[in-house]
Amino acid sequence: MSAHAQEHRPVPPRLAVLGAGSWGTTFAQVLADAGAEVTLWARREEVAREIREEHRNRAYLPELVLPDAVHGTSRPEEALDGADAVVVAFPAQSLRSTLAPWPDLPAVPVLSLTKGIERGTDARISEVIAAAGGADPALIGVLSGPNLSAEIAARRPCASVVAAPDQELADRLARWCTAPYLRAYTSTDVVGVEIAGAVKNVIAIAVGAASGLGHGHNTTASLITRGLAEITRLGVALGGRRETFAGLAGMGDLVATCASPLSRNHRLGLALGRGLDVEAAAAEVGQTAEGVATARAVADLAARLDVDMPITRAVVSVVDHGARIDEVTTALLSRSVRSE
Amino acid sequence: MSAHAQEHRPVPPRLAVLGAGSWGTTFAQVLADAGAEVTLWARREEVAREIREEHRNRAYLPELVLPDAVHGTSRPEEALDGADAVVVAFPAQSLRSTLAPWPDLPAVPVLSLTKGIERGTDARISEVIAAAGGADPALIGVLSGPNLSAEIAARRPCASVVAAPDQELADRLARWCTAPYLRAYTSTDVVGVEIAGAVKNVIAIAVGAASGLGHGHNTTASLITRGLAEITRLGVALGGRRETFAGLAGMGDLVATCASPLSRNHRLGLALGRGLDVEAAAAEVGQTAEGVATARAVADLAARLDVDMPITRAVVSVVDHGARIDEVTTALLSRSVRSE
Repeated sequence: MSAHAQEHRPVPPRLAVLGAGSWGTTFAQVLADAGAEVTLWARREEVAREIREEHRNRAYLPELVLPDAVHGTSRPEEALDGADAVVVAFPAQSLRSTLAPWPDLPAVPVLSLTKGIERGTDARISEVIAAAGGADPALIGVLSGPNLSAEIAARRPCASVVAAPDQELADRLARWCTAPYLRAYTSTDVVGVEIAGAVKNVIAIAVGAASGLGHGHNTTASLITRGLAEITRLGVALGGRRETFAGLAGMGDLVATCASPLSRNHRLGLALGRGLDVEAAAAEVGQTAEGVATARAVADLAARLDVDMPITRAVVSVVDHGARIDEVTTALLSRSVRSE
Repeated sequence: MSAHAQEHRPVPPRLAVLGAGSWGTTFAQVLADAGAEVTLWARREEVAREIREEHRNRAYLPELVLPDAVHGTSRPEEALDGADAVVVAFPAQSLRSTLAPWPDLPAVPVLSLTKGIERGTDARISEVIAAAGGADPALIGVLSGPNLSAEIAARRPCASVVAAPDQELADRLARWCTAPYLRAYTSTDVVGVEIAGAVKNVIAIAVGAASGLGHGHNTTASLITRGLAEITRLGVALGGRRETFAGLAGMGDLVATCASPLSRNHRLGLALGRGLDVEAAAAEVGQTAEGVATARAVADLAARLDVDMPITRAVVSVVDHGARIDEVTTALLSRSVRSE
C-alpha cells in the first residue's frame, strides 16, 4: 500500500535556481508550482533571508508571496548540493564573473533562463555557462518564449519553449517546468531559441523608440516584422532553424515584449524616443535593460557573419555612439527597398 | 521649354475609387496625395455630394477633409469613364451584388483594397472582381499591409504591399499609391497577399476575445503566433508563398490589427470576450467586422484542403454556432501539443 501510494506521489525533484532577480524569483515559483523543492540562490544574504523567512523578495516583486517549497540561500554549495538540476537566471553580462569563483556546477541538467549575448566574447549564454560553470554542453538546455514575468508571477496562462541538445533532455526539463499555468513545448534548436531570446530585446528597444517618437501601430508593426526578419537571418546564419523564429520563442516572444508596457527594453526604447539619452533612459527604467549590452554583441556577430541587421545597427548607433534617435529612426523607416 | 517642364510634371493619372467607406475614402486621400485625380464613387448620392461639395465624408471619417483632387460621384459611368485604373473598396460580402448591375469594368489595371473571402463561393476578392466585374485577371492587383486606416487618414507613415500577377503591373500600381507617408512594396504573390489580408481578420477576433476574457500579453502573443502559422498553412496550400506571410502583408498586418484598439475585428472579439453574443457585439462595433463573414468561408476552404486551422474553427463555433467564447478559448489554449 505504502509503496503503491509512493508510485503516485513521486519524490519531488530538487532544483537550484541561481539568481533572485525578478525572472529567477518568478521562475522559482513556477518550478515549485510544478511540484519541485526549489532552492533560490541570492547574492545578498538579506535577500536570501527574506525569501527563507518571509517567502518574499520585495526588492523585485513587492506583491509576490512565494510558495513554501521555495527556500532562499546565499551559499552556492547549499543551492547546488544534491540538486537534480540547476536553473541559471543571472544577468547575461555578469554571468561569467558570478560563476567564476564557484566550484564547477554538478553534472546534472542545467536550464538557462538568461537572455542575451555576452559582450566582448559574442558568446551565447549556454556557451558562457559551459565555459564559466564547467558544465557539459550536452546537459545545457534553454527556456524562452512569450513570458512577461509579471504575468507569470500572477499565474496567468502562458507557453514557453524548452530547447536542449537532445529530445530526451528537452522532455525532462520541460516536465520540471510544467506548472498549471505554464505549458512547456520542446525543441532541439538551442541556438535558435537563444538567439531569438537575446535579439528580441534589441528590437524591442527600437520599437519602443518608435512609439516614444509618436509613431503609430502601422509603423511599430512594420518594425516588429522587419525585426523578426533580421533576428531570423542572424539565427539561421548561426545554425538555428528558421521555424524556431516563426514560433513562440521567436515571433511569440517578440510580439509579447513589444506589446507590453512591462518590458524593460521596450520601456527603455520609449524613454529614448521621448528624447532622453541612454543614461537617463536607463535610470528611468531602473532595472537593467539587457538589450543595451546585447545590441553591440549582436551587431558584432552580424558583421562577422555578413548578416544585414539595420535595426540592430540603428540601436547600437544610439545606445553606444550617441546618435539622435529621431534621425536614426527616420533613416530606418525610409530605407529604400523596392521588392519585399 | 514648355515641353521640358511637362516632362517634370506628368499629367496626373485619373483613378476611380469604388466604395466610400472608411478605407475607400482614406485611400482616395492617399491616391490624391500621391498625385492622382481621384473620383470616389459612393452608393448614396448624399454621400457623393458631401464629398464633391464639402470634401467630407462625415459618416465614416468625421475629422477628415479630403484633398481637392478627390471628387465624389454616385454614377458608375462618371467614375469609370476615362479612368487609368480602378480601385475597388467595396465590402467583401456585397462586392458581387454591387458590381453585378454595372457595365464591365474598363480594360485598365484594377487594384483591390477589399479584404475577405466570399461566403458561399469561398472565392478570393480578385476572383470575385474578375467574375462580377468582367475584369481580366492579369490586370488585377491587390494591396494589403499594416494599414490601420485611421493612422493613414492622419498621414502617419506606413508601408503596404502591392501584389499583381506580373512585376510590371505591381510596379505601376505601387507608383500610383506612393504618397509621402505610404511606401508601397511590390510582390507577385497575389494569392498570398489576399489570403493574409482576409484571414487576419478572423485571428484578430480570437485575439480580441482572449483580451476581453482577461488574458494577458503572453497569451495574446501566443495566439497571434499560432494564428500566423495557420494563416500560412492555408495560404501555402492555396499556392501562396511562405515568405509573404512572414512579411508586411502577413505578420505586419496581423500584428498591427491585433495591437490596435481601432480595428473593428479586434473590437468585435473584445466584445465577445466580455460576454456579448455576436449580434450584440456587432452592434457595439457599429461597422461591419469582416472577419465574422470570412471566418466560415476560411473554415470551408481549410476543410476542403485538409489544413488544420484550430483558431479559425473556434471563431466559427462562436460566431456561427453560438458556442461560449470562454469554453472555446480555454479549449484552444490548452490543446495538447508536445513539440512545437
